[in-house]
Amino acid sequence: MNINHLWLIVSACFVFFMQAGFVCYEVGFIRSKNVISVAIENILTFVITTLVYCFLGFALMFGPTHFGIYGSDYWLLSHLSLSQNPLGFVFVFFELMFAGTAVTIVSGSMSERTRLLPLLIAAVFLAGVIYPLFGHWVWGNLFIDQPTWLRQIGFMDFAGATVVHGTAGWVSLAGIIVVGSRKDRWDATGKLIKLGRSNIPFAALGTFILWFSWFGFNGGSLLEFNDRVGLILLNTNFAAASGVVGAILTNRFFIKDHSYMEAIFMGALGGLVAITAGSNYLQPLDAVMVGFISGSIVAFSGLWLEKLGLDDAVGAVSIHGFGGAAGTILLAFFAPLEFLGGQTRLVKVLVQFAGVAVNFLWAFGLGMLMFYLINKSLGLRVSEDEEEKGLNIVEFSDIYSWQDYLKMTHYESLT
Amino acid sequence: MNINHLWLIVSACFVFFMQAGFVCYEVGFIRSKNVISVAIENILTFVITTLVYCFLGFALMFGPTHFGIYGSDYWLLSHLSLSQNPLGFVFVFFELMFAGTAVTIVSGSMSERTRLLPLLIAAVFLAGVIYPLFGHWVWGNLFIDQPTWLRQIGFMDFAGATVVHGTAGWVSLAGIIVVGSRKDRWDATGKLIKLGRSNIPFAALGTFILWFSWFGFNGGSLLEFNDRVGLILLNTNFAAASGVVGAILTNRFFIKDHSYMEAIFMGALGGLVAITAGSNYLQPLDAVMVGFISGSIVAFSGLWLEKLGLDDAVGAVSIHGFGGAAGTILLAFFAPLEFLGGQTRLVKVLVQFAGVAVNFLWAFGLGMLMFYLINKSLGLRVSEDEEEKGLNIVEFSDIYSWQDYLKMTHYESLT
Amino acid sequence: MNINHLWLIVSACFVFFMQAGFVCYEVGFIRSKNVISVAIENILTFVITTLVYCFLGFALMFGPTHFGIYGSDYWLLSHLSLSQNPLGFVFVFFELMFAGTAVTIVSGSMSERTRLLPLLIAAVFLAGVIYPLFGHWVWGNLFIDQPTWLRQIGFMDFAGATVVHGTAGWVSLAGIIVVGSRKDRWDATGKLIKLGRSNIPFAALGTFILWFSWFGFNGGSLLEFNDRVGLILLNTNFAAASGVVGAILTNRFFIKDHSYMEAIFMGALGGLVAITAGSNYLQPLDAVMVGFISGSIVAFSGLWLEKLGLDDAVGAVSIHGFGGAAGTILLAFFAPLEFLGGQTRLVKVLVQFAGVAVNFLWAFGLGMLMFYLINKSLGLRVSEDEEEKGLNIVEFSDIYSWQDYLKMTHYESLT
Repeated sequence: MNINHLWLIVSACFVFFMQAGFVCYEVGFIRSKNVISVAIENILTFVITTLVYCFLGFALMFGPTHFGIYGSDYWLLSHLSLSQNPLGFVFVFFELMFAGTAVTIVSGSMSERTRLLPLLIAAVFLAGVIYPLFGHWVWGNLFIDQPTWLRQIGFMDFAGATVVHGTAGWVSLAGIIVVGSRKDRWDATGKLIKLGRSNIPFAALGTFILWFSWFGFNGGSLLEFNDRVGLILLNTNFAAASGVVGAILTNRFFIKDHSYMEAIFMGALGGLVAITAGSNYLQPLDAVMVGFISGSIVAFSGLWLEKLGLDDAVGAVSIHGFGGAAGTILLAFFAPLEFLGGQTRLVKVLVQFAGVAVNFLWAFGLGMLMFYLINKSLGLRVSEDEEEKGLNIVEFSDIYSWQDYLKMTHYESLT
Repeated sequence: MNINHLWLIVSACFVFFMQAGFVCYEVGFIRSKNVISVAIENILTFVITTLVYCFLGFALMFGPTHFGIYGSDYWLLSHLSLSQNPLGFVFVFFELMFAGTAVTIVSGSMSERTRLLPLLIAAVFLAGVIYPLFGHWVWGNLFIDQPTWLRQIGFMDFAGATVVHGTAGWVSLAGIIVVGSRKDRWDATGKLIKLGRSNIPFAALGTFILWFSWFGFNGGSLLEFNDRVGLILLNTNFAAASGVVGAILTNRFFIKDHSYMEAIFMGALGGLVAITAGSNYLQPLDAVMVGFISGSIVAFSGLWLEKLGLDDAVGAVSIHGFGGAAGTILLAFFAPLEFLGGQTRLVKVLVQFAGVAVNFLWAFGLGMLMFYLINKSLGLRVSEDEEEKGLNIVEFSDIYSWQDYLKMTHYESLT
Repeated sequence: MNINHLWLIVSACFVFFMQAGFVCYEVGFIRSKNVISVAIENILTFVITTLVYCFLGFALMFGPTHFGIYGSDYWLLSHLSLSQNPLGFVFVFFELMFAGTAVTIVSGSMSERTRLLPLLIAAVFLAGVIYPLFGHWVWGNLFIDQPTWLRQIGFMDFAGATVVHGTAGWVSLAGIIVVGSRKDRWDATGKLIKLGRSNIPFAALGTFILWFSWFGFNGGSLLEFNDRVGLILLNTNFAAASGVVGAILTNRFFIKDHSYMEAIFMGALGGLVAITAGSNYLQPLDAVMVGFISGSIVAFSGLWLEKLGLDDAVGAVSIHGFGGAAGTILLAFFAPLEFLGGQTRLVKVLVQFAGVAVNFLWAFGLGMLMFYLINKSLGLRVSEDEEEKGLNIVEFSDIYSWQDYLKMTHYESLT
């Protein structure tokens, strides 16, 4: 065990902490009547990911490959025992946290109208099949040196802008299409109604937690502690900052929405997602450009989804889907030639496009199938009356907290 | 200074961060009218622990032993100066954070009806006497190689399921017995009344913070950075996850409480507490079993305490007392034989039972004596009128915040 | 890359996390109607600091010195490329987080009545000119071994009690003088009105986050991982604890304010700020004394500012200005002689006083000029009507969240 393992472990702990960041972020952005439901969903999906990914998904993703398409070994973490490979369990721990990030994103976008059980079943498929198989195609060589197909054609995704965030974003897109919009989202004439945000300061806390965790997400993805770490962390930070600038300017000059609050959050996270693809390859000023352009794309994509009548409660499709795709493709434009692995820049651009397209087809396609089947069999959506009451009460019978809340407002006589 | 010290320091910082986790968790689970009181209690008890443990408790716990029963040296951190032992101050820093964890737990369970001053006096005794003396019996050899009595008979507690959590849980049990239930806890017929939870998303944030910190709690307890770290972190995570599953199933099939919200939180934390005893010895699938069984035991114990008419505002007795005992004993059933130190499994089971029993007698016994004496001399409890008003106002004259809160609800005319 | 770099990177991540701590702390201490505004200001000022400090301020602060007064090189991070100096980007990342801390403090004290744009312009000047130039005078030798003037006369500030916190505190003082008090701060007779605190538990979380981050702030300032780290972390923790004790006792015996809530928070943070100057030089009992005295000074200074009619919404002037000055000067009284660099204790006391005075003149002077010019050109302050409505609505058109909030209180009919 050496300094590389220590860096990997500290990074993995930081990435785990994203779970806390997503709780704050998602809770902050939705209405008060659903916050308990969303907070607890986040705990339960991580519980599921832990069990399903470690015992099943990891084997598919990192086991010895069959045809470059799926791995097979290490089921139930067998053959990883301490004596053989000291890195084994450390690597599982690290990769689990990446799977956990992918899975937690989906439930946020579908919140405020989706039943709990279907979301948990979707988490099982995502952690056990959808995420690890795509992951195998790009990262299947990280634990055992072996060829897997997307990597073979030269597709580059340093820390998961496509593998983690793209996958999560496109599955979210499928989810919000199948489950439909929140019932109060559009008025009778089809005009968008702005819905309340329960706690924006809590979302700001979540944003800083996620930003902090991203230093582990990108820095740890080196899988060793070498002299590129400083550059990676700086690039990560630059892209978050310039993502905010890009999103604000886009909002001001093109979207003209006077409440640019959402743009700020989406720009920061969009920039972070985008730089995930290339933080190891870019120079600082290029990282600033990638963040800036991606922040702008994320802001536009949010507007476009609204125009299409799609309702994403926390902006996950824009941030993780479009932000991830933008970063993955922009990498081919901005990376120095020596990182292109012998391909010309044009070829690399096409390869990156192809990888993003494969990711979209796989994640969105399987996502649609999965949510369609769940919807047909179990039903995805709560009743209209339940949606009105809020999922805190519907799922967790939590009228007591709400009575406490009301009581505080009736205490006036005490003063 | 080497990689072992670095791991110890990072771990200690993570364990310190449990203070933030407990603030969120405890505040989230109690009623709004007492949240300021509980948040500030958490700050003050850590202040007390810092001063009392470092200058007094550490000497009792890790000084050269007298009869294997108490240590004596390093008073006021003397004889630890930089030149002699570079590990010295790092080790004090690390151990302080464990003492801080034990002490902060007690005030939570007694919250919403206990006066501040008695809680602070209890913190002095806990940090200065109760915790360090028991700690000496099990861990007295960690700083100086020396025999202390519980360790000598073969009692095993890797990272403190009994030393830290058991002690805190049983002192809490004494506290809630002596101070009595919250006045609204049972109706006239003795039926339990569910009380409001001020902020469940805040408690979910706290749960993830604690989960994160636990990687330092268990990982750092190796006191070096060796190839068992990966296994320990995975085991920690598995037990948290399976603890949730165990608690939910127990709630669904045995307790039949439709609001299984509390079960989820108690299962996660109960699993984490339980695996603290054996995370260094168990294989992953065994860690899953230990978490599952302990989560179930924690859920049952919560029900049982309610049946006994005991009122624990945050579930600390169940989580830390019963969870810690479960994990400590289960370790003897699940650990590979080579870790049993030459004892047969039956003997080890008996030894672990004995250690847990000694811990209960010591912590609960001294806890009862301490709270009895405090109650007789100073009075533990606020008046019924004060309890009704809430401790925010009683202790911190905080009517201003509450007026701000009310004002927001009367702003309607502005729109 | 070695263990020193790893420690620096982990510390830098911890220091970044102060951004999260300040969001929680500041939001908790102000009124609900302004919390969104303050939370988002914190994100935006860090975005600005990232771009301005890295591309401009760093060069002024750490470039080859001209006359010991300003640095010049590394503009836009040029000449720092990976191949030349592996420490380069790691050091920029670390120093950026310190600049971020300085800048975020100012907007808090002026909150609830200051417009957003002027605050952002002030952040540009602070990150680009005021902070890095003073920093050059004290720390200009850290990246390149070269003499800079305050360092040459023997001024000592280990981790930034004056460089970071003093600068931020005195600029804040200028800000609250120029912008004036919140309109509800004093009644018609000039008596102080206590204003609501939106969320004290959130501020308690923020305090623990800041406390945690401070271990990186002070520990990382060694710029290597050596055997003084343990002492530094212990000293940091001791000063926070004794700062609380000092502030409480001062409040109780001299100020006689029955709501000593603020004193607890200000004592903890004041102790942390103060020990920043000398955590590397003091022995633990001296750290306790420095924290205690500084906590007391911070509490007194808060009272004194009130008496002067100055309105600091989050106590930043007391905590960072007076706390930083206290710690910097007390260092000269308590540090062992061998750390005084050949100066007598009397001379060192005078030098420390001189350094603090220079810091005050520079930061307060330029702060007054800056805010005066901004006020004359753009206007610093919102209108009285906007202040009444709250900046959530004025700046971010956020009536939706507030309607959600109100709706919850009208749901009674659902039960």
